[in-house]
Amino acid sequence: MTGVEVAGVGMHPFGRFPEKALKDLVRESTARALADAGIGIRDVQAVYASNGMAGLLQGQEQIRGQSALRDIGIERVPIVNIDNACAGGSSAFREAVLAIRAGAADTVLAVGFEKMFVADRDRSLAALETAADIELTGGLGLQFTAIYAMRLRKRIDAGLLRERDLVDVTVKNHYNGSLNPNAQHRKPVTPEQILESRPIADPLTLLMCSSFSDGAAAVVLRRAGTGTVEGRPRVRVAAAAAASGYTAGPEDDLPSTATTCATSAYEQAGLGPDAVDVVEVHDAMAPGELLYYEQLGLCEVGQAGDLLASGATAITGRIPVNPSGGLSARGHPVGATGLAQLCELVWQLRGEAGARQSNQPRVALAQNSGGWLSGEPAACNVHILERVDAWT
Amino acid sequence: MTGVEVAGVGMHPFGRFPEKALKDLVRESTARALADAGIGIRDVQAVYASNGMAGLLQGQEQIRGQSALRDIGIERVPIVNIDNACAGGSSAFREAVLAIRAGAADTVLAVGFEKMFVADRDRSLAALETAADIELTGGLGLQFTAIYAMRLRKRIDAGLLRERDLVDVTVKNHYNGSLNPNAQHRKPVTPEQILESRPIADPLTLLMCSSFSDGAAAVVLRRAGTGTVEGRPRVRVAAAAAASGYTAGPEDDLPSTATTCATSAYEQAGLGPDAVDVVEVHDAMAPGELLYYEQLGLCEVGQAGDLLASGATAITGRIPVNPSGGLSARGHPVGATGLAQLCELVWQLRGEAGARQSNQPRVALAQNSGGWLSGEPAACNVHILERVDAWT
Repeated sequence: MTGVEVAGVGMHPFGRFPEKALKDLVRESTARALADAGIGIRDVQAVYASNGMAGLLQGQEQIRGQSALRDIGIERVPIVNIDNACAGGSSAFREAVLAIRAGAADTVLAVGFEKMFVADRDRSLAALETAADIELTGGLGLQFTAIYAMRLRKRIDAGLLRERDLVDVTVKNHYNGSLNPNAQHRKPVTPEQILESRPIADPLTLLMCSSFSDGAAAVVLRRAGTGTVEGRPRVRVAAAAAASGYTAGPEDDLPSTATTCATSAYEQAGLGPDAVDVVEVHDAMAPGELLYYEQLGLCEVGQAGDLLASGATAITGRIPVNPSGGLSARGHPVGATGLAQLCELVWQLRGEAGARQSNQPRVALAQNSGGWLSGEPAACNVHILERVDAWT
Repeated sequence: MTGVEVAGVGMHPFGRFPEKALKDLVRESTARALADAGIGIRDVQAVYASNGMAGLLQGQEQIRGQSALRDIGIERVPIVNIDNACAGGSSAFREAVLAIRAGAADTVLAVGFEKMFVADRDRSLAALETAADIELTGGLGLQFTAIYAMRLRKRIDAGLLRERDLVDVTVKNHYNGSLNPNAQHRKPVTPEQILESRPIADPLTLLMCSSFSDGAAAVVLRRAGTGTVEGRPRVRVAAAAAASGYTAGPEDDLPSTATTCATSAYEQAGLGPDAVDVVEVHDAMAPGELLYYEQLGLCEVGQAGDLLASGATAITGRIPVNPSGGLSARGHPVGATGLAQLCELVWQLRGEAGARQSNQPRVALAQNSGGWLSGEPAACNVHILERVDAWT
């Protein structure tokens, strides 16, 4: 099969940028990814553009990618707009991988962008609700936060998690975010601050939750051998797995969508969770990370709290999770998040993560989820990246 | 390269269906395509879902495909939402082709759907405007109709088209539409009726223009050899080409986006326009078909009117164009149109087009455009399909 490598990554920092248009975020993140790949705009042969809410929030629907990219001179080449709610970024990445494997292009840009801070906060909240089936949940107030809260409460009541774990994972991720110049929330927080922050949906408090965010992230993918930047470690795509959620009754014993994806990704990459060195997961609420420890096979069911408490998932641990700070600290501009995860992992694999650098990782895994169908994500993607060159 | 075949096609008729929800259109078109392919919902391994305006018109953004498909039990598999304005349907088709070529799936569904008739007509018009860069054209009233009108007027003034040609091509396409049970407008029209219908933007009158439409179209693609329905002629995908528009000054001498796509498609298929037997083009205004005769290489510049007048592009002619009736007669539900073109061509290649059947075609070409960037479509796809089995 055609090898695919990540040739360049770039982000516009996540945060609140009232002075910038959505196009500015796209331009800056793309310019950084192209420079990182050592290529120019004329080298880009295809684009997958991810966005979730520009139609509802900025009024630009239908050709979101083309209108943003034309500004920077990327035109003529195939541009496809991808929307998969919070998983759109990784869906764009996966389509780019498939396009290269299919022989349709050698050099492909995947770019994700979102501007959630608009004048009317209620419009952003309403737009977020469209990530679920509006016929079933529209107007119920059954947003992501509530769904995460119910899942966590159920696990706590079943003795599979402690309330303390929810706080500790939030402390870890905000600390990681404090080391990340691209993060929206860059201050460490204490357990007291977390518990004293506004209750959102029991057991979640404000500091456990991701917030509105503006931001963009871009990745350049190339067919292996198409070109490399001298002195830079190569990173290959070892697996690109996708699945959608399902409608299940409470008694159904189906694997979670993330598990379905991860199982497929491990098989594609020819390795298991033990071989993974660094991970980014979709913790739209920081404690969600604990659920993914189990779903990705990083620990047994009921052991997530212990894995966290052991320090294994800290940046200095055996298998760092969310060294970027994750969604709750880095920020979560919907269409950009999946690509920001992949940017972080590429920096980790290259040894370019600065104060967040984990210990010489070789295999990295990103898990990105989006939308809801009866409690399971409507879309989920798991990618595994692998450093090609040995650490020296 | 992995061969890809069209295993099944199905449409929900185009028209005005106030009693049906968007999901109903998806369900019915998908059921028909699966039945046509002789498979069940459990055989579908991936889905590409195309829609342009459900976020703005129905309030369902972000997971448009998942929310519609869950209703019919298609879940768990990768579902990716594609938006490329009026070209979204063919973009979804192309992503399905690439996914199979990349080895990511053997059986993929591409489904496009749109419901443009909503209670407030102005909302639909405003949503249509988002197919252009709203920063440049928002609120100008510079809609597709006006752009087509200016292009046609310029060509008439240059002596490259006659006003008569605009009328005659509309007569042809409405006649074809009258033979199509899936068409929105199923009455033949006379030149007098066309010229007496309401002026829209000189030289275009109402009957030359496509209208709001509700509808859906679905196509099942399979890796060659995955399974065939006994006694049914096989249809393979010979080319899948895509491009985006560009920003050009009036003096620039760049090929049109459709020409760029068609050139690439002919190269992929190893044939030229002379080998093409039947064509569907994106005539959002019926006279647009004449521009595409030239852009696709079916005739020389300035010869479009003569090609039409010769009868060559009638159903009974040498190279029938828009046997379905095209966008102006079949209807143009934005996200569905590109897939409806491909449905029509499959029926033609199989000999299943009934009263619209052209004479034993072997090679078929579909051209689908979407959105606008400074006068060129923001997205364009050209696909070439080929009948594998000999006509007997």
